[in-house]
Amino acid sequence: MNTKKKMYALGVDIGSTNIKFVLLKESKVFKKRKILTPKSRDKLIKVLEENIKELVPQGKIRGIGIGVPGPLNKKRDFILNPPNLKCLANFSLAKKIEKDLKIKTRMENDVNCFSLAEASLGAARKAKIIVGLTLGTGVGGGIVQRSNIYKGAFGSAGEIGHMTIKFDGNNSGSLEEYCSEKFFKRKNLYSKNLDEKAKRGDKKALKTFEEYGRYLGIGIANIINVLDPEAVVIGGGISKASKFFLKTAKQEVKKRVFSPLSKKSVKIKMAKFKDFAGAIGAALIIENGE
Amino acid sequence: MNTKKKMYALGVDIGSTNIKFVLLKESKVFKKRKILTPKSRDKLIKVLEENIKELVPQGKIRGIGIGVPGPLNKKRDFILNPPNLKCLANFSLAKKIEKDLKIKTRMENDVNCFSLAEASLGAARKAKIIVGLTLGTGVGGGIVQRSNIYKGAFGSAGEIGHMTIKFDGNNSGSLEEYCSEKFFKRKNLYSKNLDEKAKRGDKKALKTFEEYGRYLGIGIANIINVLDPEAVVIGGGISKASKFFLKTAKQEVKKRVFSPLSKKSVKIKMAKFKDFAGAIGAALIIENGE
Repeated sequence: MNTKKKMYALGVDIGSTNIKFVLLKESKVFKKRKILTPKSRDKLIKVLEENIKELVPQGKIRGIGIGVPGPLNKKRDFILNPPNLKCLANFSLAKKIEKDLKIKTRMENDVNCFSLAEASLGAARKAKIIVGLTLGTGVGGGIVQRSNIYKGAFGSAGEIGHMTIKFDGNNSGSLEEYCSEKFFKRKNLYSKNLDEKAKRGDKKALKTFEEYGRYLGIGIANIINVLDPEAVVIGGGISKASKFFLKTAKQEVKKRVFSPLSKKSVKIKMAKFKDFAGAIGAALIIENGE
Repeated sequence: MNTKKKMYALGVDIGSTNIKFVLLKESKVFKKRKILTPKSRDKLIKVLEENIKELVPQGKIRGIGIGVPGPLNKKRDFILNPPNLKCLANFSLAKKIEKDLKIKTRMENDVNCFSLAEASLGAARKAKIIVGLTLGTGVGGGIVQRSNIYKGAFGSAGEIGHMTIKFDGNNSGSLEEYCSEKFFKRKNLYSKNLDEKAKRGDKKALKTFEEYGRYLGIGIANIINVLDPEAVVIGGGISKASKFFLKTAKQEVKKRVFSPLSKKSVKIKMAKFKDFAGAIGAALIIENGE
């Protein structure tokens, strides 16, 4: 065990735009790298394997953890439904890399990796039950219980963005409709420009973020009522504008959490790790010995 | 351990109308009793202790488990907020009985007890992660993971009825608003008469149950998206009319569960134990050695 601890773990986070690499030893980051994601599967595999070979010190690697978008099958063999990474649908990337490079390789949902990183080394370390939430093109969720990813019975737990919060008979009414980029797009606004507008005191921008915060608070309160976590950690692109919506979100949470004790005790925090949380979490899966 | 296994465990389920007692040995029910719930705290304690003394075989009892409505504090000492059993607010019933009778006594949320009974001996036995849902004057929830009640970080997990499913800016929009007696009352209908009307083919009654089923399906889909349980078990007074809403609920679940694997695999079942599930679960807490 001790020798294993002294070896490196490589974490890879494959997103639709970028791939991030992190080399970890004893939970410390030694190297980081960020590259563009190729569009075809063959090119993706080639680029991954080249970078892995460059980054991993010969004979000193314990394994590779790969974070991928979308729900995985129960065996963690392949992605069931990757809307933003179609070239990997039903393809066992981990097995392919393990076979080619002769290094143990594990695959996990990217938001689960994010949540594991934040629970183990980030904003919610020491917390026994945490929920990670990523706000971006979609809304992702991950549950970590005593430093282990809670996967559920069929490996698909934490699909928090697909929780219905505002059923009106027409649209799906999911949290993702109200707390991802989709919300801003429906209003013909883009969260990036909006952030700058809010900084300049633009009233429409500020009001939109406030409305956003209210929906986010509803979603977080739902999570707290069901799971009663010690902390909820928020990340993802939209979270960079948190000063315009976090206060409203917290107020809404206070209104909607049923248990007086949870309401008083639960922590709602911004993620510590920015871009590399997913890759760090993917490496931690290997350090955890999964 | 073996001698303990051969001893009895007494389960008590305190509701606003009735108190139920169950005497359990090696997970088998030996005695059952149902009495009316006294209104004052002193009378309640007196009646409880009298019945316990009558039911427990001298020297052959391992302990007493008590199921109570409302969220408990983290130490399981008292009920934080019992809307239907006000006389027990902030009162440590378990300690009082333990002191008076010199028998180990534990307290737990009644829906958690229901869920434990169904997960251990009922409709979802053998399932590793289950969610229990009770539909009545309120909507209660309980999560059982590998035969243990999942309590959350602050002891308040499973408050599923307080999850917002239909935010419209005015009412709370919680599942409880749409899936408890409140739903029927808002329509000036009572679920009991409604059941009979539906049996006679009354169109309004049938349509109301269908609408109810749709909301229930939304709530169950939310649970599945977040927790990915192996089974969801439904109990409580309204569940007796399940033939008028369960099919619609299941259809709505299919529409709203994101993971293809969970959608295909999760079981939605009616509870096995009727009135005595809570008391059985309370006794199982003692058998589990808590």
